[in-house]
Amino acid sequence: MKNFLLTTIALNFLASTSFAFNNPVTIQDQGSFFAGGKMIQTPGVANFSEPRNPAGQTLHGDSAYVFYQIPVNARKIPLIFLHGYGQSGKSWETTPDGRDGFQNIFLERRFKVYIVDQPRRGRAGNSTTGTTINPTTMDQLWATNFRISDFQNNLFPGVQFPEGDYARDQFFKQMTPDTGSYDNKVITDSMSALFGTIGDGILITHSAGGDPGWMTAMQNSNVRAVVAYEPGGGFAFPIGEEPAEMESSSPFGNLKPNVYSVEQFERLTKIPIILYFGDNIPSGDKPLERWELDNWRVRLNMARLFVDAVNRHGGNATLIHLPEVGIYGNDHFLFADRNNVELADLLSDWLRENQLD
Amino acid sequence: MKNFLLTTIALNFLASTSFAFNNPVTIQDQGSFFAGGKMIQTPGVANFSEPRNPAGQTLHGDSAYVFYQIPVNARKIPLIFLHGYGQSGKSWETTPDGRDGFQNIFLERRFKVYIVDQPRRGRAGNSTTGTTINPTTMDQLWATNFRISDFQNNLFPGVQFPEGDYARDQFFKQMTPDTGSYDNKVITDSMSALFGTIGDGILITHSAGGDPGWMTAMQNSNVRAVVAYEPGGGFAFPIGEEPAEMESSSPFGNLKPNVYSVEQFERLTKIPIILYFGDNIPSGDKPLERWELDNWRVRLNMARLFVDAVNRHGGNATLIHLPEVGIYGNDHFLFADRNNVELADLLSDWLRENQLD
Repeated sequence: MKNFLLTTIALNFLASTSFAFNNPVTIQDQGSFFAGGKMIQTPGVANFSEPRNPAGQTLHGDSAYVFYQIPVNARKIPLIFLHGYGQSGKSWETTPDGRDGFQNIFLERRFKVYIVDQPRRGRAGNSTTGTTINPTTMDQLWATNFRISDFQNNLFPGVQFPEGDYARDQFFKQMTPDTGSYDNKVITDSMSALFGTIGDGILITHSAGGDPGWMTAMQNSNVRAVVAYEPGGGFAFPIGEEPAEMESSSPFGNLKPNVYSVEQFERLTKIPIILYFGDNIPSGDKPLERWELDNWRVRLNMARLFVDAVNRHGGNATLIHLPEVGIYGNDHFLFADRNNVELADLLSDWLRENQLD
Repeated sequence: MKNFLLTTIALNFLASTSFAFNNPVTIQDQGSFFAGGKMIQTPGVANFSEPRNPAGQTLHGDSAYVFYQIPVNARKIPLIFLHGYGQSGKSWETTPDGRDGFQNIFLERRFKVYIVDQPRRGRAGNSTTGTTINPTTMDQLWATNFRISDFQNNLFPGVQFPEGDYARDQFFKQMTPDTGSYDNKVITDSMSALFGTIGDGILITHSAGGDPGWMTAMQNSNVRAVVAYEPGGGFAFPIGEEPAEMESSSPFGNLKPNVYSVEQFERLTKIPIILYFGDNIPSGDKPLERWELDNWRVRLNMARLFVDAVNRHGGNATLIHLPEVGIYGNDHFLFADRNNVELADLLSDWLRENQLD
């Protein structure tokens, strides 16, 4: 049985390699480094004779891990990818069924690509705060909330998530826990340090990465544009213009607006912004029994108000609800869905229209 | 002050980019996937109406994360890199001072390169067992034990670790905690699954990765060779031939041999094996006050006995203590030291001599 499983996986893997780069990509430079973070030190004097005594010793944590690749003849402005909750930079790499993710697709399109693990997650695990990790069987909660499959692992009808055990297995394995307390300010500071190091860039966020995405754009003017795939954490509003809390049957509760000074908020009006939302998101103002749909109903509703606020203050924000432009079946990981090349084409077009490529 | 720091880091980073690939590298394919691991399920029936009830739901964990790159005109047998304790695949990427690590160096030399995060660490953080993470200031313990610097952050005299605050900062930030209980069997099973998927490969381990390295080679005949940089976890011996526990002043205690059946052990005699140890490791049979040196004294001593045992049983194992071949100053992260190209040349030569390239 074990050998059978290995063979199945091997066949799947071999099959998947047929989805490699359409053409080889020549890389000028690649590497990794840590951005931002801080050092803490326990009071006292470090003593060689007591190596396990923390007194006087230091710990470095709360930085972002970044893997970058620079293709030859690269376009000028790099793409910086920030993942969502329970994820790492893996989100943007190979898709669960072994196709090219946005990392490879945009390398092929001659963009410089920076893939981030946010502080206290993945390879950026060293944290200045502690936590307890209690593994809990919650795959079905997540896959349902992501509009991929139900509590019996049946795919949503017509969903763009790939079929089969291999893809489901790989998708669930890419989740990874927090290694310290979750803190949008810590994430934002590390992202701002990253933009301080590399200069101008286009910030591409997913889900919970949306919130520190807006915050980074307000904090560092090197952020030349924000592209947000189903931002789910929260939305920024200028004080006095925030909408009321939106009631939802989501297990994650109601959705509250995040409020900033007008001056802070208006920094978001200086750059092009685009938000993409997938399929199976209902409209309306009332909570629904289908909590996984309702979770996204309120987010899409508030995203529309956010876009209105940015544009009312003179900005350039766009929201694309994919079914409204004839693209159906996308789940919460739309950039990894079966039609992710079509999604990449949409982004390429937008970057071109905004002279960002 | 903050701006000053950012500028310093930016300058360091820009300086570091002069260490990019000597020539651009053309990549045929690259991507990532998870190998091995398991699914656990809570008894009961998963119920949409109680999304936070774990009953009937699953969790996928304990797999290895793997990022691979295949250059054009690649050599046949890939290199698989397994990091050491408190580390992730980052160990093998860019060095703390921004030079090419073994990932880039061996890509340039046309090897297929697979970089692993072991289960319950880094991007492979999803674990089926829990843990509590208590950040503790222990940088100086680690840097001293690694023969890099002392409890006042002074570099060891003549050490090959790069100078300066930037390199020290980056080095400490790349440490990352376990997200579940540490288990060599879990690591070995995932590595064996990886070799089951990709076929023949050369396993390159560091430090605590050495132990699951020997175990993987005994478990999966696709491991065509093992290259161990300062294996620190433990050494394999056939039952009845194991040496006595070695007394040490190391804060990690005495060093015990790991015992296997003769049949298991002799699988290590079917493949070429090489071990590299750096500088500042004393000889002798008595514990020393300098515990950081003593920690490696017993490991080097037992490594020599391991090599003898493999060769006594008909194997092909070599131990290179670098000062004995005229290479001085290497610390525990020798493959990232200032002379790491020289270290890579040694490995290239050995691979060629054993017809593995």
